[in-house]
Formats: sequence, structure tokens, C-alpha cells
Amino acid sequence: MPFQYEYPRAALTVDCVVFGVDEHELKILLIKRGIEPFAGCWALPGGFVRVDETLDEAARRELEEEAGLKDVFLEQLYTFGSLKRDPRERVVSVAYYALVKRVEHHTTAATDATDARWFALSDLPRLAFDHTYILATALERLRGKITYQPIGFELLPPKFTLTQLQTLYEAVLGHEIDKRNFRKKVLGYDLLIPLKEKRREGAHRPAQLFRFDPVKYERLKKKGFLFEI
Amino acid sequence: MPFQYEYPRAALTVDCVVFGVDEHELKILLIKRGIEPFAGCWALPGGFVRVDETLDEAARRELEEEAGLKDVFLEQLYTFGSLKRDPRERVVSVAYYALVKRVEHHTTAATDATDARWFALSDLPRLAFDHTYILATALERLRGKITYQPIGFELLPPKFTLTQLQTLYEAVLGHEIDKRNFRKKVLGYDLLIPLKEKRREGAHRPAQLFRFDPVKYERLKKKGFLFEI
Repeated sequence: MPFQYEYPRAALTVDCVVFGVDEHELKILLIKRGIEPFAGCWALPGGFVRVDETLDEAARRELEEEAGLKDVFLEQLYTFGSLKRDPRERVVSVAYYALVKRVEHHTTAATDATDARWFALSDLPRLAFDHTYILATALERLRGKITYQPIGFELLPPKFTLTQLQTLYEAVLGHEIDKRNFRKKVLGYDLLIPLKEKRREGAHRPAQLFRFDPVKYERLKKKGFLFEI
Repeated sequence: MPFQYEYPRAALTVDCVVFGVDEHELKILLIKRGIEPFAGCWALPGGFVRVDETLDEAARRELEEEAGLKDVFLEQLYTFGSLKRDPRERVVSVAYYALVKRVEHHTTAATDATDARWFALSDLPRLAFDHTYILATALERLRGKITYQPIGFELLPPKFTLTQLQTLYEAVLGHEIDKRNFRKKVLGYDLLIPLKEKRREGAHRPAQLFRFDPVKYERLKKKGFLFEI
């Protein structure tokens, strides 16, 4: 035990709630724990913060090690510090949420995880530690934020149809949205660039593809523009 | 050095950005540091988290010890964990922001502080550590949140006039607001209860006093109501 301190210190971890949208469903990436406590139990990807890395670096490292994820949208959520959240000792966890464009089945064999898998929000297993509570906090943040910041585009491929965009909002918010109002709003902001390509969706006539204009959004935001869906 | 660990551990602190509104100005409560590093320098109230207290408890304890503040609105802001933010060693700080109704001059002589004083946002001294950055983050959060959650009332006395409410919004947002639109909006939500009392403001005729109805707000919020100023 080579590291000695005058006062007892909490251990510091990061935990990541990873959201993705698959067809019509909001999904969460979970890992199966390979070590105690809660060995064999599903949990959020995460782990201990090293003393020589920032919190963001720790979150990105764990996402890559435990779930094979790189270059995702990542934002700090909240820091959880109740006294008994880990049976081993006092552990304070800085939680993040990540938004991923393509929901794939990862089976990265990593340090402390034996499996990584996407679960529908409607079909979640029991989670280790206080991870169900952290997930609920992340979901509340995502549902709030998607209505006043254009972060939803992080969950879509770069080119998308208006139907895809509406399906995404419905999957995240958990309820249906009026199609006419939705289209009027999203097109009214003039932040979607119509592309020359179209895409056939099922038996319908080919649908216009769009991409989001983040540069224009940043410019409008500086002038006080408020995005609201 | 009785506390030993297998891996090096960061120290954990809390820092609090305390906002108050005085006449027409947004003010911040700062303490003068009594110990190194940055002895004699102004800083946010805060300090080390004890291993047997939650993060919220640590923030409330420090606010009371260093600034004599009790029973204030307190919310976690963000956790700051860059590597060199403290010259002594790796320190990760969970930042909070607090909203205080009455701006008074505190001179509580406390553990690590020699003075506590309110500063106008327009007249801030140089701050210790990365506290200027933490303060800027808190200000951005407050300015955002006051427009979509009724937290502004935490900065007002329980009974207030519409002029006081508008002055508060102008002080926080840092710009003037159109009086007619503002009154139409805040009265339109039906969340302000008109009281039987009036208050004389300067040479004008007595102004109606109101109080905010938090119970009704919670009820409306559950039905999907969105507050927006």
C-alpha cells in the first residue's frame, strides 16, 4: 500500500450511460461485470479514474476498453456521492451520458467486462450499484435537452429523412408527436440542409434526405436564437 | 499518514457559487482565503469532502462554516477535474450553485476563511484556482435555467412586486426586458398569487404584491407544462 494520506479518501470512478436509437426504440449499452462486486450483473460501462487523467479522459477510456466505443458525443451528467452506493468503500462517481449513431452488438472482451450489449429501455435487466438511478437521471436529462438543444442529431446518421428524425424524437420522448407541427417546426428553423439524394422508405415514394447544419446553429445561438421542439 | 491505498487517489472538494440580487445587481459571495495556496486571495466558499458526508452535506457545511449561510437553494453544477487546477496535488472539485434571498454582509470568521463579502458581477476581484471559470459556468447555468424553470423566486423575498421580479430577471440576464411582454407572460401562467397587500415603490402609486405558487407549479409540471420567460 504505497500511497498514504493524512485523511481517508474516497475512490473516484466514472460511469457512462450510452444511448442509441435502433429502428423505433431507445437503447442503452450495458456491460456484464466480470469481477466482484456484482460479478455477472449488468452495469453501466465505467471504472476508476486514474490520478493522471481528466474525468473526460477516464470516461472515454472506459467506453473504449469496456464497449469498443470511440469518438462519441459525451457530456458530463452529474456526480453521485451517497455514502453506501458501493459495498466496498466510499466511492464517488462522476456520471456521463454518451450518444451513439449506430447501435451495434459489441462483444469486446475487456478488462473488467465479459460482455457488452444493447438493451431496449422497455426491457432493462436489474443493474449493479445505483446504476438504475443514474440511468433514470440521464434519461431525464436527455428528454429535457433534446427539446431545447439539437443534440438529437448525434443519434442519427449524417443523412436522414424527416421520418427518421421524428421517429428519433418519439423514441427518446416515449410518446407520439404530431407530424405536421413537428415538420413545420424543424423546417422553420432553416437548420436542415436538403440534399440532392432521396431514400426509399418501404412502399412509399422516395423521401428527401437532409443533413443538420451545426455551423449555422452555432452562429444563430450566438445571436440568442433558441432551438425548441 | 495513517490512510493507505494501493493506487494514488485524488483529493475531493466542493466549491459553491453563491448568487444573490441586491437592488439592480447580481452579486456573488466570495471568501478571503486564510491559508495557502492563494492565502489572502478571494475564492469561492468550499473545502475538502469528508469521507463520511455526502457531497451535498459537504457543500452545506462549507457554506455555513465559511459564509454563515444556512437553508439556501443549492444545486450541483458540474465536476471540475483538470489535472493542474490545484498547485498542491490532484484535486477534483464538485461545484454547486446556491441562490440566496437576502444579500447581507457576512464576516463570519471560519476555519479557512478570514472574510466573506458580496461582489457585484461587474466588479469581481481576481479569484484563486480555476474559480473564475467555475463562476462563469455557474452564471451560464443560472441564465439558462431562469428562463425555463421558476428558480428566480429563490432570489426574491416571499412577497414581491412585478417590478422586483422584472428587475431580478434583468439583473441575472444582464439586459433589459420589455415590460409589457414580461408581465403578460408571468401573469399568463397563473402561478403568481396576488396578495391583499400593496407596497409603495418610490413616488409611484402602491404596487400589488404577489407570491409564487410552488405547489401549483409542481402540479402543472407533472402534466407537461413548460415554464418559459
